[in-house]
Amino acid sequence: MPTALIGLGSNLGARAAACARAASLIDRLPQTRLVALSRLVESAPIGGPPQRPFVNAVLRVETGIRPGPLLRKLKRIERDLGRVPGLRWGPRRIDADLLYWGEAVVRNGSLDLPHPRIAERRFVLDPLAEVAASFRDPVRGCTLEALRDRAAPEVRGQEVSVMKPVPRTWKFLGERIARRQSDGARRAPARILRTVAALRRYVAAARRAGRSIGFVPTMGALHEGHLSLMRRAKRECDVVLVSIFVNPMQFGPREDFSKYPRDLAGDARLCSSAGVDAIFAPSVEAMYPPGFKTCVDMRDLTEPLCGRFRPGHFRGVMTVVAKLFLQVQPDAAFFGQKDFQQAAILKQMARDLDFPIRIVRCPIVREPDGLAMSSRNAYLSPEERSQALCLSQALTEARRLLRGGERRAGRLRRAMKRIVRAVSGARIDYISIVDPETLRDVEQATPSSVALLAVRIGPARLIDNAILGE
Amino acid sequence: MPTALIGLGSNLGARAAACARAASLIDRLPQTRLVALSRLVESAPIGGPPQRPFVNAVLRVETGIRPGPLLRKLKRIERDLGRVPGLRWGPRRIDADLLYWGEAVVRNGSLDLPHPRIAERRFVLDPLAEVAASFRDPVRGCTLEALRDRAAPEVRGQEVSVMKPVPRTWKFLGERIARRQSDGARRAPARILRTVAALRRYVAAARRAGRSIGFVPTMGALHEGHLSLMRRAKRECDVVLVSIFVNPMQFGPREDFSKYPRDLAGDARLCSSAGVDAIFAPSVEAMYPPGFKTCVDMRDLTEPLCGRFRPGHFRGVMTVVAKLFLQVQPDAAFFGQKDFQQAAILKQMARDLDFPIRIVRCPIVREPDGLAMSSRNAYLSPEERSQALCLSQALTEARRLLRGGERRAGRLRRAMKRIVRAVSGARIDYISIVDPETLRDVEQATPSSVALLAVRIGPARLIDNAILGE
Repeated sequence: MPTALIGLGSNLGARAAACARAASLIDRLPQTRLVALSRLVESAPIGGPPQRPFVNAVLRVETGIRPGPLLRKLKRIERDLGRVPGLRWGPRRIDADLLYWGEAVVRNGSLDLPHPRIAERRFVLDPLAEVAASFRDPVRGCTLEALRDRAAPEVRGQEVSVMKPVPRTWKFLGERIARRQSDGARRAPARILRTVAALRRYVAAARRAGRSIGFVPTMGALHEGHLSLMRRAKRECDVVLVSIFVNPMQFGPREDFSKYPRDLAGDARLCSSAGVDAIFAPSVEAMYPPGFKTCVDMRDLTEPLCGRFRPGHFRGVMTVVAKLFLQVQPDAAFFGQKDFQQAAILKQMARDLDFPIRIVRCPIVREPDGLAMSSRNAYLSPEERSQALCLSQALTEARRLLRGGERRAGRLRRAMKRIVRAVSGARIDYISIVDPETLRDVEQATPSSVALLAVRIGPARLIDNAILGE
Repeated sequence: MPTALIGLGSNLGARAAACARAASLIDRLPQTRLVALSRLVESAPIGGPPQRPFVNAVLRVETGIRPGPLLRKLKRIERDLGRVPGLRWGPRRIDADLLYWGEAVVRNGSLDLPHPRIAERRFVLDPLAEVAASFRDPVRGCTLEALRDRAAPEVRGQEVSVMKPVPRTWKFLGERIARRQSDGARRAPARILRTVAALRRYVAAARRAGRSIGFVPTMGALHEGHLSLMRRAKRECDVVLVSIFVNPMQFGPREDFSKYPRDLAGDARLCSSAGVDAIFAPSVEAMYPPGFKTCVDMRDLTEPLCGRFRPGHFRGVMTVVAKLFLQVQPDAAFFGQKDFQQAAILKQMARDLDFPIRIVRCPIVREPDGLAMSSRNAYLSPEERSQALCLSQALTEARRLLRGGERRAGRLRRAMKRIVRAVSGARIDYISIVDPETLRDVEQATPSSVALLAVRIGPARLIDNAILGE
């Protein structure tokens, strides 16, 4: 079903509750399903008499109702919620605007699609990019994320602020959508695709139906970190595709390729629970048929950090990801910040080779005690598992020192090293404070510098990192 | 306008003339334009009484007539040309079948689209792939070239033979189409696109209109060799896009990057005359913005031949072509056999990285005296120009010796070397007889072996090659 994007606004009465109520009524329209909510943002009123700030949000819905009738139903909801026709720029209980309806372009006075003033209003652009970053504006031909990022300086300068804490009514609505999606996911297991041909057919059908595609490449052995990428992809794209492929080309000869954990059935269940639509799980022979000769590589970013300890690793990663990108041709691809260097390299690769793919880096997911989630944590004995806490503890210490005013990277590194060395079984590969763009060591740390470390504990080589100011 | 593919067949009376007459009548239908003719192929009749072989062909037309009315008009043309309803498998003066109409899928007894027996008949599959290799079968989801190449063994075993010489009526019709295309081209100069954004908009519009895209990457300084690629692309695709970009990354530090001939205005005129729709001519800064770091590379195929003398050259070629492929996203890309090693490498790259692009290698175009066309021939003085003939003469001698039974590659090489060495100013980089797949030297030559040579004459480094059995 086509995607419609609806803007809400209110500056009279219980503003967040009015937005939630309108969203709830929209969700109950026939053939219509609310699939994503933006956060609520506050903005100053435009023109008119002195009045309270507006609360705004954007809804993403899938709907079988054509744009004209849908707009009339929105006007009806406005009336039902007590909006009284009055001053053009005056305060209002609720405003519901149809911003986009699929790729429809309509200009007829009563219906204007896309909505004419989108690009001038940051309180619309920000929430739009939040719920539909990959959605393409049919007139401007760019994604909503690009539309936001390229907004004029005077638009970017408009003040908007995310409402915190999230009002109860809005939070409940979000939870309802999430619950429904995970229910839906339980009913529909992710489809498993084994060959490039099957993958291409699946993707072509989704494209013909006008659906955007979010892609999460993985090596399986999925954990909550991966699932967070899938959920993020589901929020931003119509179809989510996960690849599960333990890529021999990125393992060194003495590394853990053969014993890397593999459990496709279990992984498929986890994917389904996260709302994934399809899993691409090719064989090694399908990815690297006899006579395979090509590689994608990069200088600079691949040299420091893990590049020094895993020669050829990033070449293997870049080559397999370039292949996967060309096989899947997604709108957006989602990577975890835990592999900070990998994410930086792949973002640079996509830019350099002109992959028309948005690269999204998502936050690290940690266990309650701080250990970064990793498939390789499975290698740790209970004792090693507790030793492994030294990585996140070292990062916490570096951030604490920076907050306290310490800028000398050497001091931060030494403090981290002390914490790791206090653990008997820990062997340090590197501890570095680097620039987030060049990945080169800095002398003076700033809040945007990144602390990274790789430490071997028992049979596992663990990595972790943190942006110091976050 | 949608593309329709029409099959013709005749085995009664003047068979080729009947096909030409039918094609001519189809060309005169309202809102309909004949854009390509296959060659005529003969095939044995299927079933029925003893009768003469059929002459068959496929026409590619662009038409605004919907499939049902178009089929009725074809039946009318059959009657007008004297077809009498009779025995189902009997001889017939002319048969005109609607094989494809855009991506329409229709099954209603009177109209079956795609035509149901296409995949079983080599006399249809071969001409279809000839005029519309990149056209996609909407049911099978593959190109017509793939449909031909994957036909069942019993279909591939069917005997069909191309009619030679080409009957006069058929040749005239082909010339009329070519003339009209070059007239059309004169009227519509190729559009020049300077940025990746403009290119993406152009390609997206063509895609939305359902048009296939043929791509010819060049460094400009166009000659008849390039134009032959563009004409081939125009025969096989709806839209032809040429890139003109002198790629610094593929030139060595002591090579001719700065003095390489550049003439965009002249090149644009030549492109227009060959029916090219758009030219992508980016700046060096647009292709390699500051901080560019990525490369695509390959082992094995890049090592022998020119790879030994131009270190890094093929890395530069692969990287720029990968970028161009991702910018243009064509259905097919056309390369000249003159750069035999380059074509082999790019075909391997496309296969290895899963570019969904058909790589087409087209024959070398030569001056009347045998010199292979090259932009670098412009560097030659009149005297050097005549010395340069030693390359093609050496290849002719190698082919003559092979035809005479000589299989020892060493003998062939020595014979070639003698011819080149007889020219005072010629300095040999290499003379090799190689396997066409691995590009490695062979001991025993076969008709599929390739002779290649690189010779420096005056300021120019010239290359040439020949498949020995051709």
